[in-house]
Amino acid sequence: VTVLPNFGDVMLAVGRLRGVSIHTPLLRSDILDELTGGRILLKAEVLQRTGSFKIRGAYNRLKQLVESDMHHAGVVAFSSGNHAQGVAAAAQILDMQAVIVMPRDAPPLKIANTRRLGAEVVLYDRWTESREEIAAAIAAERGATVVPAFDDAGVIAGQGTAGLEIASDVKALGLSLDAVYVPASGGGLTAGIALALEGTSPGTEVYTAEPVSLNDHALSFAKGERVRNDPAARSICDALQAPEPGSITFAVNKPRVAGGVIATDEEVLRAMNFAFTALKLVVEPGGAVALAALLAGRIEAKDRNIGIVLSGGNVEPDLFARCLELEAF
Amino acid sequence: VTVLPNFGDVMLAVGRLRGVSIHTPLLRSDILDELTGGRILLKAEVLQRTGSFKIRGAYNRLKQLVESDMHHAGVVAFSSGNHAQGVAAAAQILDMQAVIVMPRDAPPLKIANTRRLGAEVVLYDRWTESREEIAAAIAAERGATVVPAFDDAGVIAGQGTAGLEIASDVKALGLSLDAVYVPASGGGLTAGIALALEGTSPGTEVYTAEPVSLNDHALSFAKGERVRNDPAARSICDALQAPEPGSITFAVNKPRVAGGVIATDEEVLRAMNFAFTALKLVVEPGGAVALAALLAGRIEAKDRNIGIVLSGGNVEPDLFARCLELEAF
Repeated sequence: VTVLPNFGDVMLAVGRLRGVSIHTPLLRSDILDELTGGRILLKAEVLQRTGSFKIRGAYNRLKQLVESDMHHAGVVAFSSGNHAQGVAAAAQILDMQAVIVMPRDAPPLKIANTRRLGAEVVLYDRWTESREEIAAAIAAERGATVVPAFDDAGVIAGQGTAGLEIASDVKALGLSLDAVYVPASGGGLTAGIALALEGTSPGTEVYTAEPVSLNDHALSFAKGERVRNDPAARSICDALQAPEPGSITFAVNKPRVAGGVIATDEEVLRAMNFAFTALKLVVEPGGAVALAALLAGRIEAKDRNIGIVLSGGNVEPDLFARCLELEAF
Repeated sequence: VTVLPNFGDVMLAVGRLRGVSIHTPLLRSDILDELTGGRILLKAEVLQRTGSFKIRGAYNRLKQLVESDMHHAGVVAFSSGNHAQGVAAAAQILDMQAVIVMPRDAPPLKIANTRRLGAEVVLYDRWTESREEIAAAIAAERGATVVPAFDDAGVIAGQGTAGLEIASDVKALGLSLDAVYVPASGGGLTAGIALALEGTSPGTEVYTAEPVSLNDHALSFAKGERVRNDPAARSICDALQAPEPGSITFAVNKPRVAGGVIATDEEVLRAMNFAFTALKLVVEPGGAVALAALLAGRIEAKDRNIGIVLSGGNVEPDLFARCLELEAF
């Protein structure tokens, strides 16, 4: 029987992450409020250490290993980017060994950043090799622990600390949040935030945001069971390529998440342009998908207080340059 | 006799700006600390309303007009960009009329943003017309008040609120700041921060940062009197084009500022690239000049706590694209 994470696990993660993760700001934008007619609060996880929220879950999980004295052989993770950097940074802080299995065609910036953080990078061919098998073999050989990107109670609890920060910052503004929209790949950040808000802001609805071509969460919530994406589907949101919701994340999310919104790749590029022009933030495609859904009119914002998570900013210059060519809003 | 602003004026500005300006975050970067060997604290004024610090001084000055019942005929300002937006936004919040005199060749984004904020924009030819004369004529005709971009006690006091935030955030981290580096055009932000730190962190040295071709502050501090830039000098730092230090700002800065550092245009572009890659912030050239001096090795940072002000992020997409073409650090 898998034990699901709960609100108490998120609270325990706060203590572990103190002095490690950044309490990222909740930003406002006059232009965004004017365009939407609502009050929009932007959780800027692009300003988190390593450029995305991932260090929260990774550090929480690794610290658990230290607490149970299971950290000596190090950790193994497979990831095309942000989780890799999160695990590498967490391992560096805790002085643990980390092996990251990354696709040979991952963005060079993400590979370089992972190595810079002291991790050993093992490259594989995403079309002919299985990263799960490679990671499992390394873990077996070394006695190391595999750290999943999302389908893990400790990882989910760590991501939930972002939700606690949203709740406390919204409260400090004297407001209450009607709904929050979270970019979703495997659903770990959504699950963590859903647990955090259940305990601190139970009236707030939680939604996933996904690329239209990779809308497995939206379809799964509608159907009531996990649905896989079309394996042939592609999106510029390279951080949101999990094939389906995780089993643990879906068990957490199904009773707590109100539904899912979607955005096209072009809408995502427009949202990145908006973030550049109006917010002065660098947001990667996957990190901009909730903002994209909002700007595309797919979120009811009028006279409501809406939270939008900007989950990451690790984007290659060439890809970012594409968003600069668009017309500003 | 001109009355110079003092620490008390900055404290009064805090009350006026409450609920108007954003207490912008003081950010850290693992990579920046690793590269410099110091502890670097980045004041992210790019996240301020209107994308630069300018709304602080503008709003403080306009609110003073309201307090003395001199606001009915509105205000006039001349600016190529950030001050224009600051005055326009402040006037919009206070329901005052604002006329902004802008050069016809100002960045279109800045002209559009100024109009979007409800101001009337009057364009002039910067090679054949005098913006001072145009602004004075409009002010005389309407009975409006000219709001200078920097050489004004109320404007300086407003900018100083950024310095108070730096001091309180540094203290909350349990640190003390050895020095802070401030991008300088007319010297208003530097003067405000110098006054704020004099009252809250007197051991902190204050330095200006300028483009090498427009280093009037550095030269003026060295000579002990105001020195003008070569009128033929050019820089990509379009926000830092004041011809010389202001008379009020220089009177405030001369006894309080330790000196000036400089950066080349290429170093500024590299700093913008660094901010994109490692900080996930959009910084305009003029806003990146202190960071540029740091990354170029012109600031002694090893084992020191250094504040770097990122003063604005209003940059055209075409210009920003240039920084993306550089090699990352």
